[in-house]
Amino acid sequence: MNSFGTIFKISIYGESHGNQVGVLIDGCPAGLAISEKEFSNDLLRRKSGAKGTTTRIEEDKPIIVSGVFNGYTTGAPVLISFLNKNTKSEDYKDLFNFPRPGHADFTAKMKYGGFNDFRGGGHFSGRLTLGLVAAGVIAKKLINPISINAKLTVAGGETNVEKAIEKAIKNEDSIGGIVECIAENVSVGLGEPFFNSVESVLSHMVFSIPAIKGIEFGSGFGSSKMYGSEHNDQLIDATGKTITNFSGGINGGITNGNPLIYRVAVKPTSSISKVQQTVNLSSGEKEELKITGRHDVCIALRVPVVLEAVTAIVLTDLMMLEHKIPTVIPNNSTR
Amino acid sequence: MNSFGTIFKISIYGESHGNQVGVLIDGCPAGLAISEKEFSNDLLRRKSGAKGTTTRIEEDKPIIVSGVFNGYTTGAPVLISFLNKNTKSEDYKDLFNFPRPGHADFTAKMKYGGFNDFRGGGHFSGRLTLGLVAAGVIAKKLINPISINAKLTVAGGETNVEKAIEKAIKNEDSIGGIVECIAENVSVGLGEPFFNSVESVLSHMVFSIPAIKGIEFGSGFGSSKMYGSEHNDQLIDATGKTITNFSGGINGGITNGNPLIYRVAVKPTSSISKVQQTVNLSSGEKEELKITGRHDVCIALRVPVVLEAVTAIVLTDLMMLEHKIPTVIPNNSTR
Amino acid sequence: MNSFGTIFKISIYGESHGNQVGVLIDGCPAGLAISEKEFSNDLLRRKSGAKGTTTRIEEDKPIIVSGVFNGYTTGAPVLISFLNKNTKSEDYKDLFNFPRPGHADFTAKMKYGGFNDFRGGGHFSGRLTLGLVAAGVIAKKLINPISINAKLTVAGGETNVEKAIEKAIKNEDSIGGIVECIAENVSVGLGEPFFNSVESVLSHMVFSIPAIKGIEFGSGFGSSKMYGSEHNDQLIDATGKTITNFSGGINGGITNGNPLIYRVAVKPTSSISKVQQTVNLSSGEKEELKITGRHDVCIALRVPVVLEAVTAIVLTDLMMLEHKIPTVIPNNSTR
Amino acid sequence: MNSFGTIFKISIYGESHGNQVGVLIDGCPAGLAISEKEFSNDLLRRKSGAKGTTTRIEEDKPIIVSGVFNGYTTGAPVLISFLNKNTKSEDYKDLFNFPRPGHADFTAKMKYGGFNDFRGGGHFSGRLTLGLVAAGVIAKKLINPISINAKLTVAGGETNVEKAIEKAIKNEDSIGGIVECIAENVSVGLGEPFFNSVESVLSHMVFSIPAIKGIEFGSGFGSSKMYGSEHNDQLIDATGKTITNFSGGINGGITNGNPLIYRVAVKPTSSISKVQQTVNLSSGEKEELKITGRHDVCIALRVPVVLEAVTAIVLTDLMMLEHKIPTVIPNNSTR
Repeated sequence: MNSFGTIFKISIYGESHGNQVGVLIDGCPAGLAISEKEFSNDLLRRKSGAKGTTTRIEEDKPIIVSGVFNGYTTGAPVLISFLNKNTKSEDYKDLFNFPRPGHADFTAKMKYGGFNDFRGGGHFSGRLTLGLVAAGVIAKKLINPISINAKLTVAGGETNVEKAIEKAIKNEDSIGGIVECIAENVSVGLGEPFFNSVESVLSHMVFSIPAIKGIEFGSGFGSSKMYGSEHNDQLIDATGKTITNFSGGINGGITNGNPLIYRVAVKPTSSISKVQQTVNLSSGEKEELKITGRHDVCIALRVPVVLEAVTAIVLTDLMMLEHKIPTVIPNNSTR
Repeated sequence: MNSFGTIFKISIYGESHGNQVGVLIDGCPAGLAISEKEFSNDLLRRKSGAKGTTTRIEEDKPIIVSGVFNGYTTGAPVLISFLNKNTKSEDYKDLFNFPRPGHADFTAKMKYGGFNDFRGGGHFSGRLTLGLVAAGVIAKKLINPISINAKLTVAGGETNVEKAIEKAIKNEDSIGGIVECIAENVSVGLGEPFFNSVESVLSHMVFSIPAIKGIEFGSGFGSSKMYGSEHNDQLIDATGKTITNFSGGINGGITNGNPLIYRVAVKPTSSISKVQQTVNLSSGEKEELKITGRHDVCIALRVPVVLEAVTAIVLTDLMMLEHKIPTVIPNNSTR
Repeated sequence: MNSFGTIFKISIYGESHGNQVGVLIDGCPAGLAISEKEFSNDLLRRKSGAKGTTTRIEEDKPIIVSGVFNGYTTGAPVLISFLNKNTKSEDYKDLFNFPRPGHADFTAKMKYGGFNDFRGGGHFSGRLTLGLVAAGVIAKKLINPISINAKLTVAGGETNVEKAIEKAIKNEDSIGGIVECIAENVSVGLGEPFFNSVESVLSHMVFSIPAIKGIEFGSGFGSSKMYGSEHNDQLIDATGKTITNFSGGINGGITNGNPLIYRVAVKPTSSISKVQQTVNLSSGEKEELKITGRHDVCIALRVPVVLEAVTAIVLTDLMMLEHKIPTVIPNNSTR
Repeated sequence: MNSFGTIFKISIYGESHGNQVGVLIDGCPAGLAISEKEFSNDLLRRKSGAKGTTTRIEEDKPIIVSGVFNGYTTGAPVLISFLNKNTKSEDYKDLFNFPRPGHADFTAKMKYGGFNDFRGGGHFSGRLTLGLVAAGVIAKKLINPISINAKLTVAGGETNVEKAIEKAIKNEDSIGGIVECIAENVSVGLGEPFFNSVESVLSHMVFSIPAIKGIEFGSGFGSSKMYGSEHNDQLIDATGKTITNFSGGINGGITNGNPLIYRVAVKPTSSISKVQQTVNLSSGEKEELKITGRHDVCIALRVPVVLEAVTAIVLTDLMMLEHKIPTVIPNNSTR
């Protein structure tokens, strides 16, 4: 079940300390100009999000294995892979028996009978989001003229992100944050009532990103404190424009032409250098655990570009269902 | 796209002022004892949630049309339908040109080219949740021994729900709320990494419920203010039990055996009796709109039973994928 | 798993001797004019196929339960149901222990642990094809300008169908046949390489029809005796027209603009009046079985209209994927 | 749409003259012992099928990129890739404008607006079946104790396959054939009524294999000439064993415990050395085409191992749906 999408389908594969991670994209229209260098900006944003942070340096160079010919997508599946080079597996050899709090070590071992690749979290690693970002680069081109921007607005409960991170570094601890994502120029009519509402498919994808604990659209949790007379967005004109945007650009699960707005809560990075308590899964005894190496102080810093990616992926699929993206991209397209 | 699920699949159909609403359940195991009277408790909870509220009284009697024989499911698709009797369509005749703020009237008209059944919201009506509740009754039996309980904990920003509602009635306005849902006795190992994480599939279904604006698991949005050293749930024993439960019972998208906990934000009911502004979609002119009739003051009152239902539906599918529910229910089962 | 399709999805439900059979159609565009009387021609063809045959007379009147408003589809799911009235269940009471050769009585009992509705074959009954024919009527309107025609060309091994049937009646036996289906005006480019080739999706649907034992496209089994130099269809012009059509209108799984041609083999009706051997599933003893009542001598007579229906359903889905059917049917459309 | 399966899902990617072809397998249980050398037998059968034949020699060495750790599957997606080394793309440079009869050159160009990788058929190449065979090797281990055997029984209309091929070589032409596939030790109860009948899902996958023109189960097309009294398989005992097996091991879409038997028709190889007629797609003029290089005389020789693979893949999925394959393979398993 490592795939998502109805027409524009993505599947991710790989492990943190295996040979590769990557993404297989099925249903990408033919004729989209695409080159490896177009990925660098978003891949760099994902990497450099990691301030005060992990010393694992990977090149993160995308290899377009299939589905692109002479610089254009062919209509066949696009496989994009990233080689893992800088792996130090011995760091993780104890994870099999000593699960790290907050990580998937315990659940993965139970679910897969101990056969899971536990090195660095294996298939559960945040490194898998490389494939999401890569697919997002393609999706962003397809959803033209929609523009998507995500931003870390709060870290550790403070709006001064820089300061909060410095404080966390000093405390040798990790902090979480809130990331807001806005998509503009979204046409009216994307999404379906009920099971494929925009909120449903977006949240489905968003919770694929590790460390996300919550999502809210428009007024979100604040709506629970409002009166209906305040909350209802009053229409201004027949294009659907409203004065306020508490709906977050969605009514009845369907985009209404106003900006699509949502926010996510990101938990503090689970890997911290402080001593924690765990259990030896062989003996059942409680044990102290000290995670060595340096890790992201605030994983939320890396989330914006991933959030943009999954938003673009979801919107691509929804636009395709509404015939808003052609099955073959015309030659002179600006996409 | 009015269906959901991998093995246990549900599809809903119908319109607020059509002949019926209902649900088609595919993939229900054979051998589950089921009778129409078993639905009455949850259907009543859904109905009587509507305090201070709509005068539309429907019998909400489920008709099991197919898939049940001699009191047991047969393994064939189960169709459950509810007749609409108490419809007064003339009340809604203006909705075609005068969309109600906060409703899907505008987006539905745009998406379906004006062909949508706009009476009472048509297919977008909250009445469609009858099918969800009905499917939930079956799902709750299947997921035995898991128990699910949802509760409205906050209304209009206050923990005294009764008082908040009285106040809203006095103000002739509507209010929102927060509903918490807890599933206990969940086994370890449900869910998949990434795209079919428990959070992904649960949020997908939860946002199918009208009026939901946000969802958070465990620590949720509060996690963004915590340190990692506080947030990480420390393990107590080799069964995965933890001291705290900020994870909400899920690590890496997979259940860890602790209670599954999440909360949703419900917006204030969109239908209010106060005069609102809309636009005449024919002329493009602004118009005043007064919604007549009485409506739910706090739609969040009806949400708990629906939330339990979709949680049970999702868990059924996840348990089936893990072979935790047999393909044929044994005769002497307590399910 | 009683559903099929990617965008145009159909689900069937019901039992031979239950209250209803029917079909739920999801993904039908809004704006298609549809009335119950448009179904009568194909429903009658399905019924009157039954020459020399079953005395069970059902009205087969379609009830459009949802998804149609003021004579047009709304974009919401379309439920079409057929009431079962003329059921005589006592005829079938022995099927539980004495499975009829050639029928699903044995496999259904095993698969569903004896909980299946065995009366008249239950959910396995050919009566379920009513839903397919009904969905086909809608699909045929959507795929305009494609026209589909299926015909029983051979019965009991003879091209004189009438005579073969008379002979079978005289012998108190049943016969099979071959039905050919041709779709014309199919545009180039429908279907996908490999898993969603036109042959793949069409055969998937065709084998949903009871009693089908084989399918062949174009040259079919005859191709195995041909030389490549004979078999290759030579192109005439740049529109893809070919001199011969051994490909059956498909190359590499994708339509090439020539007529789509395939044939199916239909086995002789399994219900015959001659004494047959079965096994008492309780005791394990061999038993003689005599099926009473009259049955279709040649079920293949009923197949053409069902074949046309499933072909139209599949082509609808494939055309939607290529944006050849609009998401909203324009008002002045001839569909 | 380059993927197939409900729980055991496979996706194929790559092009004949690109860097790689391969398969991504999702849903493989953890704990299955697997090594690269286990693939060699079936990969060799696929390759050496090519008698009298193509001089393209590829190493066909599988690279297990992900999803396997310490010799066992981990439960994460398994990516298996094959490098293309021996590519001579200049041979194919004219295919863009001069489509080869019987190939997908024309349909692919039309469908993908000329952006498809046309070299050697690109993504439509038979080389993509490498991925199917590789996935089949894994599937064959999972479906234990089912054994599957496929065999070319007829070539060029003759049962003496050797002789038929010699004759075709002498004639500088190509021939087709008939391949029979038998699966033994299949348990009762796999498959679903209607849309996921065993015939439906098997034929869906079988027609993914290039060059297949027809499929028939059990009596197949011969059934159309039989009387019902001959065709009905009479039961012998309560396990479902029958005297004859005209049903091919399937009743009502569900396996009955008797051997699963089907046959496919394979067309003559489309690439022949004789001069053929095509059309210059730029000018619209008719042109003569001579395909250089040597090609498989009888592609049907390569089909048996691919047929076994897709049968195993389909049975894996069906067995998983019936819980006949555990979610984690026990350590001491003979699989």
